[in-house]
Amino acid sequence: MKKFAVVLSGSGVFDGAEIHEATLSLLAIAKAGAEYEIFAPDIAQHHVINHITGEVMNETRNVLIESARIARGKINPLSAFNAASFDAILFPGGFGVAKNLCSMAVDGSNCNVNKEVEKAVSAMYKEKKPIGALCIAPALIARIIEGVKVTIGQDESTAATIQAMGGTHVNTTHGEVIEDKANRVFTTPCYMLDATVLDIYNGATNIVNAIMDSMK
Amino acid sequence: MKKFAVVLSGSGVFDGAEIHEATLSLLAIAKAGAEYEIFAPDIAQHHVINHITGEVMNETRNVLIESARIARGKINPLSAFNAASFDAILFPGGFGVAKNLCSMAVDGSNCNVNKEVEKAVSAMYKEKKPIGALCIAPALIARIIEGVKVTIGQDESTAATIQAMGGTHVNTTHGEVIEDKANRVFTTPCYMLDATVLDIYNGATNIVNAIMDSMK
Repeated sequence: MKKFAVVLSGSGVFDGAEIHEATLSLLAIAKAGAEYEIFAPDIAQHHVINHITGEVMNETRNVLIESARIARGKINPLSAFNAASFDAILFPGGFGVAKNLCSMAVDGSNCNVNKEVEKAVSAMYKEKKPIGALCIAPALIARIIEGVKVTIGQDESTAATIQAMGGTHVNTTHGEVIEDKANRVFTTPCYMLDATVLDIYNGATNIVNAIMDSMK
Repeated sequence: MKKFAVVLSGSGVFDGAEIHEATLSLLAIAKAGAEYEIFAPDIAQHHVINHITGEVMNETRNVLIESARIARGKINPLSAFNAASFDAILFPGGFGVAKNLCSMAVDGSNCNVNKEVEKAVSAMYKEKKPIGALCIAPALIARIIEGVKVTIGQDESTAATIQAMGGTHVNTTHGEVIEDKANRVFTTPCYMLDATVLDIYNGATNIVNAIMDSMK
């Protein structure tokens, strides 16, 4: 049975992992007959956002502890990730990717990447194992793997950031998956487009199935 | 197009709405060709649980604001709910139902129900519109509507609580839906059983489809 590592960045689209993308990624993996383990870095969130008003809340939360809400407590610190134990790695989106897993939301194309995230992606890349990313997460992968071909949908500003990091951006619409065969990187836009939960279901299903097909 | 009201109780299985059940309920509604609006009461959570350790955290969170994480900000206070605008109402599970929407986790069969929750359920019941509940939420419905027939799976203690409240409990397994035709109440066990995300997908799909069929 193929095994995915799913890396979360909190719980909630504006300061963490996008909840529908995360949940529907887990569902897609299970539907494909594969299994998963969930990881997140044990670090403070960049900030906490009130998801109604969009304003910063005066509190602190931990990325691993909040990600555990999506994982129902079954989660490991990303420091424990071992590439040898997994067949693929998958990053759901959400602003947490650009705020907690790297500093892209603040620093753009010159952003820093969390060391554990960089290590996990680089280890999978070195072993030529598939790397999947939804929504904004493809930009994170483009910062780690030089010259990768990805999609984040059609957002011109984010596409420009990807190009500035040396990546190639391909415009896509709902549910489409871009496969960079040479680098074994799979990406799909999800909520980087104006999407519904049904679009996310299709996107998560398509990217997981594309990854599974590539391992046949 | 049929319209569901989905009532959340926070964001996270141990102190709020169960995230997979909530997300997969939204997906099931969309797949069935219906639409939804999301509601939650604007009240403090009973408490905040660290979802890794299970321990109470020394902080306060608001049920509406946390539920907005699952709703991506598109949520209304339950005080604004108007039964005339909806064809059905659906309650995903999670401990938030028994801690925030009523006091069952503390008070058992003698629990108090949040007044807005009671009003919303009673209004739909009076209009003979379908009421759906997943996981532990059927026990909440049994507290509001006397003599209802529901399932929460096979948990003997919760089944006894439901009987003590005057309800009838029917044992079920993964994905099964109990329909109380006289009362138009639909229930399914989800994570009240030792379930996978795939089981929740099936349970949420089956309960939404059963509700849709009943409205044909």
